Amino acid sequence: MIPTKQEVEEACERVKPYVHNTPVLKSSYLNELSCAEIFFKCENFQKMGAFKMRGATNAILQLSEAQKKAGVVTHSSGNFAQALSLAAKNLGVKAYIVMPENAPQVKKEAVKGYGGIITESESTPIARETEAERIQKETGATFIHPSNDRNVILGNATSAAELLQSYPDLDYVFAPVGGGGLIAGTSLSVKYFGNNCKTIGGEPFEVDDAFRSLKTGKIEFNETTNTIADGLKTFLGDVNFPIIQELVSEIIRVEETEIISAMKLIWERMKIIIEPSCAVPFAALLREKERFKNKKVGIILSGGNVDLKNLPF
Amino acid sequence: MIPTKQEVEEACERVKPYVHNTPVLKSSYLNELSCAEIFFKCENFQKMGAFKMRGATNAILQLSEAQKKAGVVTHSSGNFAQALSLAAKNLGVKAYIVMPENAPQVKKEAVKGYGGIITESESTPIARETEAERIQKETGATFIHPSNDRNVILGNATSAAELLQSYPDLDYVFAPVGGGGLIAGTSLSVKYFGNNCKTIGGEPFEVDDAFRSLKTGKIEFNETTNTIADGLKTFLGDVNFPIIQELVSEIIRVEETEIISAMKLIWERMKIIIEPSCAVPFAALLREKERFKNKKVGIILSGGNVDLKNLPF
Repeated sequence: MIPTKQEVEEACERVKPYVHNTPVLKSSYLNELSCAEIFFKCENFQKMGAFKMRGATNAILQLSEAQKKAGVVTHSSGNFAQALSLAAKNLGVKAYIVMPENAPQVKKEAVKGYGGIITESESTPIARETEAERIQKETGATFIHPSNDRNVILGNATSAAELLQSYPDLDYVFAPVGGGGLIAGTSLSVKYFGNNCKTIGGEPFEVDDAFRSLKTGKIEFNETTNTIADGLKTFLGDVNFPIIQELVSEIIRVEETEIISAMKLIWERMKIIIEPSCAVPFAALLREKERFKNKKVGIILSGGNVDLKNLPF
Repeated sequence: MIPTKQEVEEACERVKPYVHNTPVLKSSYLNELSCAEIFFKCENFQKMGAFKMRGATNAILQLSEAQKKAGVVTHSSGNFAQALSLAAKNLGVKAYIVMPENAPQVKKEAVKGYGGIITESESTPIARETEAERIQKETGATFIHPSNDRNVILGNATSAAELLQSYPDLDYVFAPVGGGGLIAGTSLSVKYFGNNCKTIGGEPFEVDDAFRSLKTGKIEFNETTNTIADGLKTFLGDVNFPIIQELVSEIIRVEETEIISAMKLIWERMKIIIEPSCAVPFAALLREKERFKNKKVGIILSGGNVDLKNLPF
């Protein structure tokens, strides 16, 4: 059930020509502040600005030639819509993207810019799924889920794999928890390439479905989604949840104010742009910093796609 | 008169243990947009967030032990105040900083944070100089000018030296022109380590004193300073002007709207934070992009200290 070490290694080789081996940055100021030694894996510098480029690329590369010819389809209003569009374009494949009609114009244009073919739907999950199914039937395109897909998870694993290749003696790797695709992939690489290393998830209190799912042993949902971390509003799926249950040590929850302050610290001190979701694992580390004192901690900075007109500070 | 190659090489060795060899970033999107191949030398990732750390460090390291004991003094409300404070702190030297009483509180606190000893003065140039002279007399501290000092210029030269060490076949290196210390240092390294490479300055139309100085052959001033590039409001000095006259090929002027749009492009596409002054040379390249088609262009990204509460977009 759980993907093997060989599968992760093959994914690394497969996506290598199509994604950046993103830099790892350090900050002596943030080390001092957190009392830990932090290694920031900068997926905000990834192509299209987020780690999702890795999963999308790996998933498309696993299709048969006939499948590639028919194209791929997904529903997303966020980074995965852009990632699938760009990954498909790079591989000469058509990408059909179902976006809610009320999605911001800037996001629609980003998808178009990467060559994605947009179909608008009502914004309910059912309407989006129905529309994606219709496109599948009409075009023969393969549906690729943004986070609950084995090949997407394997592609996402390549970020932590690169990080641990450069820094094999990390004690912890932190990643944000949204739909579960990144944390599941991260935990695979930590298991296979780490040395007594543990995977920790960061999640907003406002959308703590994954935290609760680990407690109850079944996939939980969020009744409200009042968080600034707009990439983390989704819930886990049946493909990634078993991996998370087995391999993620813990999920630490953080307050909205902690997310904003962690984001501001990274902007001001590291001079790099990260999106709010991306600040969540660093906020989690700061919240519980006594426990990680003098440890070597990797943090996956998941993405940098923010609306500069709408900053929280 | 013009510093020698050996002096620049010695400065590189001297500052090496105290400054970051900052990364060089590339962006395929910005290459496509500009039709050139751009190598961004990221001094926004330098200690305290700007190239000025290099000049300040080199200047202090050139002092005698007796001079170090008495400390250093400068007048600045910008990055050099922070740079001299931090460089002095790293070397166990006292730094007296004269700041205008109306300087933003956030800048005063940054200087204090780096251990600088602040004296407030009225905001006129004469009041600041008088105050700095008084401190010199009372403490025996050595005055270090932010841009018109041979050792500061030599320290600043180390950024372009590193850039050309990694990419020796650049056709051009662009840098912003403010007080002249960075462009003078850059032009020295381009002369000594470049291969048929030229130095180009970027300057806002609103404060085009250096552009006019090169035309008239004498140091010109600005009657008004209505530019967003707040690091470029100052004028050249008798130490850097002769270097600039001899070694800078050209200064390209840009409009305020071009600066803001170049800054936004770098933030959005490269996910890094740069200050407005820092966007000026990239704006200059874009303005004249036909002339630099298919060329290899280095750009010194001078710094990343911005007030996040006061962004132009």
